[in-house]
Amino acid sequence: MKALVFDGQARVRDVPAPKTKPGETLIHVTMAGICKTDVEIIAGYMDFRGILGHEFVGTVAASPDPALLGVRVVGEINAGCGACDYCRQDLQRHCPSRTVLGIKGRQGALAEYLTLPLTNLVAVPDTLSDEIAVFTEPVAAALEIMEQIRIEPSHTVAVIGDGKLGLLISMVLRLTGCDPVLVGKHPEKMALFSHLRGRTLPLDLFLQTDERFDVVVEASGNASGWNVAMKKVKPRGTVVLKSTYHGSLTFNPAALVIDEITVVGSRCGRFAPALKLLDLGLVDPAPLISGVFPLEQAEAALRKAQEAGAFKVLVRM
Amino acid sequence: MKALVFDGQARVRDVPAPKTKPGETLIHVTMAGICKTDVEIIAGYMDFRGILGHEFVGTVAASPDPALLGVRVVGEINAGCGACDYCRQDLQRHCPSRTVLGIKGRQGALAEYLTLPLTNLVAVPDTLSDEIAVFTEPVAAALEIMEQIRIEPSHTVAVIGDGKLGLLISMVLRLTGCDPVLVGKHPEKMALFSHLRGRTLPLDLFLQTDERFDVVVEASGNASGWNVAMKKVKPRGTVVLKSTYHGSLTFNPAALVIDEITVVGSRCGRFAPALKLLDLGLVDPAPLISGVFPLEQAEAALRKAQEAGAFKVLVRM
Repeated sequence: MKALVFDGQARVRDVPAPKTKPGETLIHVTMAGICKTDVEIIAGYMDFRGILGHEFVGTVAASPDPALLGVRVVGEINAGCGACDYCRQDLQRHCPSRTVLGIKGRQGALAEYLTLPLTNLVAVPDTLSDEIAVFTEPVAAALEIMEQIRIEPSHTVAVIGDGKLGLLISMVLRLTGCDPVLVGKHPEKMALFSHLRGRTLPLDLFLQTDERFDVVVEASGNASGWNVAMKKVKPRGTVVLKSTYHGSLTFNPAALVIDEITVVGSRCGRFAPALKLLDLGLVDPAPLISGVFPLEQAEAALRKAQEAGAFKVLVRM
Repeated sequence: MKALVFDGQARVRDVPAPKTKPGETLIHVTMAGICKTDVEIIAGYMDFRGILGHEFVGTVAASPDPALLGVRVVGEINAGCGACDYCRQDLQRHCPSRTVLGIKGRQGALAEYLTLPLTNLVAVPDTLSDEIAVFTEPVAAALEIMEQIRIEPSHTVAVIGDGKLGLLISMVLRLTGCDPVLVGKHPEKMALFSHLRGRTLPLDLFLQTDERFDVVVEASGNASGWNVAMKKVKPRGTVVLKSTYHGSLTFNPAALVIDEITVVGSRCGRFAPALKLLDLGLVDPAPLISGVFPLEQAEAALRKAQEAGAFKVLVRM
């Protein structure tokens, strides 16, 4: 089968189709998305080698549950051991021996086929197109914030970073009734949120105001976002760290202690509620699609995803 | 009056007695404690110059409320503006224009007299000696953790740092029914907690075990504690940062995001509940007293407080 493989360089190659292990399902991928994490992997994040990609929609081609054959599905990307404390709490995404689709120990979704445990799959309603359903994973990641902290309608909230994740987070958080301000450097990206009547502010103006926020979500995707977040969060406020990137940062812990800031690391979320928000149209990522490429042109898709101004690049199999 | 003044060097000097501003009370200090923060100030923390000290017991010598004259009191160390959002929520300790006794913009307690706003004072029950009541401030700081996070009896909890604060935190946290393990490098200090039937573990053994904890409190007082805490906290667990020191630290934010760790900065707490715990004997800091010096020998007291193996050094006026 064809796949986008990273072996120090990301290339479309012919590779053997995956073999399913017991309890796993073979999925014929129909559409996959390129994520900032894929770009970070190419920069060295997670030391991953293999087929890239973790956002997908597909149909079940082989399964221990015959009722699933031909069903259109999305799938949670973390595959746990099934036996540890985390797995027993339905938190496979924190299983210490987990594999992660296209990120850690498991071949990814930018391919004709992938395998995942049966329990990872969620059926996609007929009302949702592939182009929208493929956003389930990043919407679930945005929604994860709501599983971790309580955002009240009266809270002041800033989202740092006008990339895909920052936009999806802004769309999700405003469902709480708060009125988040999306902060970024790219007017054309922030315009997508303005068109939805969301508040936006260029980073330089944001830094000039004295206002500090109850909640600051750091989704800039690079180390500079940390200092912005720490500067703009209120005493006793919360910083949600969403960016994963290859690198380290330096900070003054006394500032965090004196202002009693809470910092919450936040990663993947549950798929079912994210799919529901998409199906109800409460989050509509359609304006975020910057292009759709066939799998044969996945290298071009990856280059497009790295261009300034690009949002979500999709690959159709 | 005599006072321990830091002007680049900490010396006992004769200085003018303080003048009270409107709404403030003059307190004749009878006993004060030396805190690790005082030692950090001498190392450069907070750029403070003036009379050191913020832990005290005293009697009211002059007050806008005549009923308070002669009453024995302790006092919250943060003096707010009284008008901002924080002050109106009884969170003077986060008022942006606050002064802090012996730490920021306000002369400290290692002196014959100090002044504080009337609203900062809490009367000390007759049942409590000066030697115990002077611990109200650090016990309140330990108890602050309980205002910020929920610790359940079944949680696994580690406290890093066998200094005064680490010990008081361990004593306070075990009131929740959890069985915290106190981790340190000083057998003679950890022995104080063992004598109270508390669990202790030398740092090197702690680092050798695979166990990770629901909650790790970092009270080591130096930057190395951060890495220990990050290594020993469970995925989705909480690190409480209690140490304030002069310096910065470097970390990998991806680890925090991937494991969805929550980091909570924690500083000063409320005095009334701390005083209650002391009065009920539920926290007994008596074994932590390493020496009592007269004010004239406050420089020697400060040196004693910096000695390896020393706990709380008190100064009697």
